[in-house]
Amino acid sequence: MPEIGLTALYRAYIDCLNNRAWHDLGRYIAEDIAYNGNTIGLDGYRQAREAEFRNIPDLHFKIQMLIADDTTIASRLAFDITPRAEFLGLPVNGRRISFAENVFYECENDRIAKVWSIIDNVAVAAQLSGR
Amino acid sequence: MPEIGLTALYRAYIDCLNNRAWHDLGRYIAEDIAYNGNTIGLDGYRQAREAEFRNIPDLHFKIQMLIADDTTIASRLAFDITPRAEFLGLPVNGRRISFAENVFYECENDRIAKVWSIIDNVAVAAQLSGR
Repeated sequence: MPEIGLTALYRAYIDCLNNRAWHDLGRYIAEDIAYNGNTIGLDGYRQAREAEFRNIPDLHFKIQMLIADDTTIASRLAFDITPRAEFLGLPVNGRRISFAENVFYECENDRIAKVWSIIDNVAVAAQLSGR
Repeated sequence: MPEIGLTALYRAYIDCLNNRAWHDLGRYIAEDIAYNGNTIGLDGYRQAREAEFRNIPDLHFKIQMLIADDTTIASRLAFDITPRAEFLGLPVNGRRISFAENVFYECENDRIAKVWSIIDNVAVAAQLSGR
């Protein structure tokens, strides 16, 4: 079934990220990948993810909810991480923060071709201000 | 098929909102509905939606992406609206803004019981600052 195919692909993609297996990223991400409407390409996508892991040493992607149909994946990711410095434009500076990302992926030829991500930066700001 | 069932339920729910058919809301929303982890109940949920339509006269929910499995719905909603005053804590004050919401719904007994919503307030802030 296609549903099983795309959720399996997605879980393998998340494992690839968590294992920093950058040489495998092209198995999951299309060469002309677009992130929130901007075509950044596989190299740009890889560089962005590598930078995140440098800036957030304990970065880990945890799938909280996951559904898919023939071409689209929807995932709610949970993060509990400690960014070194600024994150999402906010001065996190080594504090531990928890937040979610709700993200849709459009797939072509069994690879992720478009990402539509929204991160709950309001939750991060609230944690930093002690609310 | 359950997938067809929940996507049909969801489209009917969105029509209910867009038509301000508040008396029908209980067909789609559980009595003990929780929004982002807070149990607000059907009455609280209805009051929140009614307040949004008062504060945003041209409020319209447009489904951009929609997938579902047996119990979960994922939707990307597109908004192109003109809030009268403050919106998402930002001084919109009658300007027209466009943004998306990525939202998951957990269903029980053919009603939405839990909502996990993230709104792209960064896009709204960028539009207000002219970026």
